[in-house]
Amino acid sequence: MARLIALQTHDVRFPTSQTLDGSDAMNPDPDYSAAYLRLLTDAGDGLEGHGFVFTIGRGNDVQVAALRALEPHLIGRDVDATLADLGGMWRELVHDSQLRWLGPEKGIMHMAIGAVVNALWDLKAKREGKPLWQLLSSLSPEQLVDLVDFRYLTDALTRDEALEILRAAEPGRAAREATLLREGYPAYTTTPGWLGYDDAKLERLCHEAVAEGFSLIKLKVGADLDDDVRRLRIAREACGPDVRIAVDANQRWDVTEAVRWMGELAEFDLAWIEEPTSPDDVLGHATIARAIAPIPVATGEHAANRVLFKQFLQAEALSVLQLDATRVAGVNENLAILLLAAKFGVPVCPHAGGVGLCEAVQHLAMFDYVAVSGTTEGRVIEFVDHLHEHFVTPVDVHDGHYHAPKSPGAGTEMLSGSIVEYEHG
Amino acid sequence: MARLIALQTHDVRFPTSQTLDGSDAMNPDPDYSAAYLRLLTDAGDGLEGHGFVFTIGRGNDVQVAALRALEPHLIGRDVDATLADLGGMWRELVHDSQLRWLGPEKGIMHMAIGAVVNALWDLKAKREGKPLWQLLSSLSPEQLVDLVDFRYLTDALTRDEALEILRAAEPGRAAREATLLREGYPAYTTTPGWLGYDDAKLERLCHEAVAEGFSLIKLKVGADLDDDVRRLRIAREACGPDVRIAVDANQRWDVTEAVRWMGELAEFDLAWIEEPTSPDDVLGHATIARAIAPIPVATGEHAANRVLFKQFLQAEALSVLQLDATRVAGVNENLAILLLAAKFGVPVCPHAGGVGLCEAVQHLAMFDYVAVSGTTEGRVIEFVDHLHEHFVTPVDVHDGHYHAPKSPGAGTEMLSGSIVEYEHG
Repeated sequence: MARLIALQTHDVRFPTSQTLDGSDAMNPDPDYSAAYLRLLTDAGDGLEGHGFVFTIGRGNDVQVAALRALEPHLIGRDVDATLADLGGMWRELVHDSQLRWLGPEKGIMHMAIGAVVNALWDLKAKREGKPLWQLLSSLSPEQLVDLVDFRYLTDALTRDEALEILRAAEPGRAAREATLLREGYPAYTTTPGWLGYDDAKLERLCHEAVAEGFSLIKLKVGADLDDDVRRLRIAREACGPDVRIAVDANQRWDVTEAVRWMGELAEFDLAWIEEPTSPDDVLGHATIARAIAPIPVATGEHAANRVLFKQFLQAEALSVLQLDATRVAGVNENLAILLLAAKFGVPVCPHAGGVGLCEAVQHLAMFDYVAVSGTTEGRVIEFVDHLHEHFVTPVDVHDGHYHAPKSPGAGTEMLSGSIVEYEHG
Repeated sequence: MARLIALQTHDVRFPTSQTLDGSDAMNPDPDYSAAYLRLLTDAGDGLEGHGFVFTIGRGNDVQVAALRALEPHLIGRDVDATLADLGGMWRELVHDSQLRWLGPEKGIMHMAIGAVVNALWDLKAKREGKPLWQLLSSLSPEQLVDLVDFRYLTDALTRDEALEILRAAEPGRAAREATLLREGYPAYTTTPGWLGYDDAKLERLCHEAVAEGFSLIKLKVGADLDDDVRRLRIAREACGPDVRIAVDANQRWDVTEAVRWMGELAEFDLAWIEEPTSPDDVLGHATIARAIAPIPVATGEHAANRVLFKQFLQAEALSVLQLDATRVAGVNENLAILLLAAKFGVPVCPHAGGVGLCEAVQHLAMFDYVAVSGTTEGRVIEFVDHLHEHFVTPVDVHDGHYHAPKSPGAGTEMLSGSIVEYEHG
């Protein structure tokens, strides 16, 4: 019987602040980082589970300490039994009665659980020889709902309702998988829009984005209104009328300020306004959404858990749901969030960029298309063109689409050379 | 010029799980712990600032790592300048653009900031020779609002509105301080009600609570309905009709389950139901509150930050606000929360117990009485009778009241012998 025998961690930091990649109204100088995790077994098959939490620099060591705190839950476990019941494993980790106090279900400890859960999925997918999206898409509706903890969700989504959603999508799975393999999944790009870039760079990158086939780009806003208007004019001019433009305030505003500021940007026919205010402020987002309609409100990359997403949907506080691969407690919780989105009929446009977020989150969006929502209508996965070279299976984005990964695993494995080179301290 | 020269940390754990003190529906075997912090200066006056995060055991080491991550913000700073602008210090810590990603404003990193902020207040109070409640009560309305970050609050509470609340309370400060020093602040006790205690112990402790002058006791519920009914009968019988009984489900239920369960307990004339469901679920609490009225809904000990409290108040999702001394980012954020509660006219009944929470939170409630809400009507501070012996200035609770501390500081200093004896690992 094979057992989990080691949890290795690494504090990996890329010095991105030197080029202002990733600069926005709240994050002027991020150093894109990963609190990184490898799960080793004694199976002798050479397969490891890899996962990580994306952070933006300082505190990545604390995030690593949180990964280490989960070691006692893992070492010595039967690999087959553990991977056969990842729903049970999720509950054990999330509901550890002492660790739970540190959230509950939010922040550093919750993200650490997410990395462990994702590493277990990576291992499971490698052992089954499938990319994660395909592995998930091969599970029955019953197997899928067993992965979900419906605690705190049942006033909005019950197990039976989730089953119904998954069963309704079952007949079309094979056809959609074929379509996905042929056409890919629509992408949008944030590469042109970082606040630290000057106007010439913005214009050049907009032209490049159009040439590369993207039908939606995103600009950071919220630091200075005049700058925002000027930059949106440049982007609209450069992109032409057929490319959609979204904007992202990265939590910069208070509620009334968001409404006022967006009034000034309404003329630009925006695809959405992302993170107008605190990611915890469900009621604030609902107020903003009502006031600036029909401009859609988007949020989710900082939403701490499924209970937040439930409320955002109940309150009609978002109309674009941006789940993140490493913010919540991994694949299982994101499955709950995909099911909530499907129940409420809201499109999911995952957050990506960072370190490895594109590689990880594409699996969730593709699985959603094949087996949950059954559509890519109104859906795009974020794409930012940096740091992909550090991953064993970097994303394949061309012609404005993510092309489905075929390698086994969850996409979360970093090159060992990169880990060594960028290990911090 | 004196400078901050060292941040010392300790992982302190008390083996409370051996006696089932602190056992409830979600926390069967907590080991009450403190991620503990000492701030040293080179002033030569022998004064140190002490602060801590209360946790319940596992993960306390991660919480300590988060304290350490804040060291670069502190070491080398001018003590006088820092203590003269704790509003500015709070903003610097909470809005550190890289650390912020790990929350934002929630969980381990936010609580670590709270411990540092509280340690700075402890140092400031010691240097001024006053207990914290008296120091805060001596500040002008303008000085107090300068301590508050109104970001994300202004749709519910502006700086001007906060000033108005504080100015309205100013004339009565001296009279209320005198009353407080004479009579103390009402307390309630959770000592009888832990789930791990048998019926005989529950009954005995209820009798003792009444004899000690408490007018409100609290019982843990939510694990088994029949047990809850039986235990409430015993408690009501033992306490008589004039002592109020609150119940606490510690987040055990889903929304519909909470409504159903509380229907079965309604006959007991309850003071409140505490934490019926996820502490993040503002809308869920609002639904429960409407359904079980007139039973008041209480929550707050796990509310991650002021944005959560704002929403709970806006949605009328709580009618008893239970702030905690070490869950949010310290004194400054709790000042914001007290002002929000005053604006919405909701009584604050602080969470306490744990390790040192009684010692710390009494200062906030007493300051609120003297200088913010101006009343103790409908307000009680939680009291649990354990672990006080480990503190330099343990609470003085008798005749059902907290009696105002007179020693300088924030009450957060643990005996050095206790730190040494219970240091973990």
